[in-house]
Amino acid sequence: MRIHVQNPPDELLFPITPEQWDTALARHPDLTGLEITFSNDPAGLEPALAEAEVVVTWTKIVHAQMMQGDLARRAPKLRMVFCTSAGIDRLLPLDWLPPGAALLNNRGTHARKAGEFGIMALLMLANHVPFFADRQREGQWQPRFGRVLAGRKVVVVGLGTLGGAIAEHAKQFGMHVTGVRHGTAPHSACDVVVPQARLDEVLPEAEFLVLACPLTPETQGLMDRRRFELLPKGAMLFNIGRGPLWDQDALCDLLDSGHLGAAVTDVAVPEPLPPEHRLWRTPNLFVTPHMSADDPDTYNDSSLDILLNNIRAMRAGQVLPNRVRPELGY
Amino acid sequence: MRIHVQNPPDELLFPITPEQWDTALARHPDLTGLEITFSNDPAGLEPALAEAEVVVTWTKIVHAQMMQGDLARRAPKLRMVFCTSAGIDRLLPLDWLPPGAALLNNRGTHARKAGEFGIMALLMLANHVPFFADRQREGQWQPRFGRVLAGRKVVVVGLGTLGGAIAEHAKQFGMHVTGVRHGTAPHSACDVVVPQARLDEVLPEAEFLVLACPLTPETQGLMDRRRFELLPKGAMLFNIGRGPLWDQDALCDLLDSGHLGAAVTDVAVPEPLPPEHRLWRTPNLFVTPHMSADDPDTYNDSSLDILLNNIRAMRAGQVLPNRVRPELGY
Repeated sequence: MRIHVQNPPDELLFPITPEQWDTALARHPDLTGLEITFSNDPAGLEPALAEAEVVVTWTKIVHAQMMQGDLARRAPKLRMVFCTSAGIDRLLPLDWLPPGAALLNNRGTHARKAGEFGIMALLMLANHVPFFADRQREGQWQPRFGRVLAGRKVVVVGLGTLGGAIAEHAKQFGMHVTGVRHGTAPHSACDVVVPQARLDEVLPEAEFLVLACPLTPETQGLMDRRRFELLPKGAMLFNIGRGPLWDQDALCDLLDSGHLGAAVTDVAVPEPLPPEHRLWRTPNLFVTPHMSADDPDTYNDSSLDILLNNIRAMRAGQVLPNRVRPELGY
Repeated sequence: MRIHVQNPPDELLFPITPEQWDTALARHPDLTGLEITFSNDPAGLEPALAEAEVVVTWTKIVHAQMMQGDLARRAPKLRMVFCTSAGIDRLLPLDWLPPGAALLNNRGTHARKAGEFGIMALLMLANHVPFFADRQREGQWQPRFGRVLAGRKVVVVGLGTLGGAIAEHAKQFGMHVTGVRHGTAPHSACDVVVPQARLDEVLPEAEFLVLACPLTPETQGLMDRRRFELLPKGAMLFNIGRGPLWDQDALCDLLDSGHLGAAVTDVAVPEPLPPEHRLWRTPNLFVTPHMSADDPDTYNDSSLDILLNNIRAMRAGQVLPNRVRPELGY
């Protein structure tokens, strides 16, 4: 089976290396007969497509080089496109994918790192860190006391890898956790799980709100002005999903007015956020540059394990655990 | 037994109220015969001293109104001065205390809140939050990826309430924890405990350093320039103790030079820090205004429980758990 890894030409931190591949393969000794090629030259992709059954690459490369043109003709043996990210919203809809080929994301890779970032964000909100960041700009020593997380209510929208890991930490800190998900399956870290259609019912109780769901047509603009206003006064928010999950202007307006207490966001529209953007300047809003879920020390090892587990499943004719379902978009 | 509570005249968040006292006493029904008086007028202290066996008050009030003059004569029945804070460094040495009277602090009150703040600070450092706070000032979207805490080394100086609680959280996140304390007693959250005299030996391995010890003549200036230079390049620091535990100028110099990676401090010299102070402007340094350990929701309830436990011990002729030992200064 021919696998091709197409790295971006300019990637310094996260390129997949032959050494990482060899080490990963040694962890999966039952998987034999895998041949691999590597390229970090955009021109290297097209010839590799002719032979590859599996392409391992970045969403931006799929977006720039694979979605256009007749992929089925260019990649006649293609069975699997494995993206080294979890969010694949810009590849939707999946009408470009050849019949018989699956798109996979690397969900699962981000659990530990995103879980730590998520509980950090909740603690930063509880301790007024966004407020103190604003005061530091001004050189103003202005104590404001925070409260512990125990006993307080958090609503986590999305119970995949990210939301699930954050919910686990929140539970460990004694919070009351309400999960919001596509279905109604229970979750071990949640006191309550409700379907997305009942989001409006749980917002008035949300002292803390975490957005950790994928961006799909169903979730785009999920937190609009009306839903922000359903939150209790002083509510605190954390977005680790995607910028378009919320209405950024409404967010800023309601932070300005004081209806919302504070927010931390690791995502924005657009990314990178230009220097003059309102998000940088809105009080009680702390912005991090989309780095919450990626740990360079473990990222590729974890992604390659996930890839190899999916190749094993494919060979056994089983459901691919990381297949993006076209009807859901994640 | 007469107890007098002297609140500051201007205290909005933390004054001890008669309602809090009644509720606390109901949690300790065995303690009978306690009479209580309250004042928030500085002029109310002197007449109360004539009768009180126990004075419950703030360190700043002890400093301003009790340390001067012949306290033994003014407070002939005094057996206990209970301070509603843990750090009593500005009351040292305790030569003003009448023979037969004990000074108590409220250590123990701050465990949960300080523990949460401490793990937040470690996560903020691991995730480059001080760096991103600087970038937000400039409106610069500049990703820098952090690593999870698991497997990384933290040295916690001081294993009292604050340091102990932080060490517990660090252990739960999978860190390797080295404790530094006055003695050599082991600690359940620490992989290793060393006495303060061996601090120099553990600094070169400290990816993270937490200062959580009391300020005493032995700890003043503990982290001087030489010891900062013993830390590995890129080391990250958190001070939840007192500003004079470290040399602030050396800290800023070594953050400027890049030898130190980042720092979070909840304490400073002086407090409040004036707007023009270098600490506000040093890169990769995040300042919070001495609010890390105090939770207004639970603070007084917890302090009053500690007070009542000590009164019970005094009546039983036992060692007072919260007595400040004059020879140690904490």
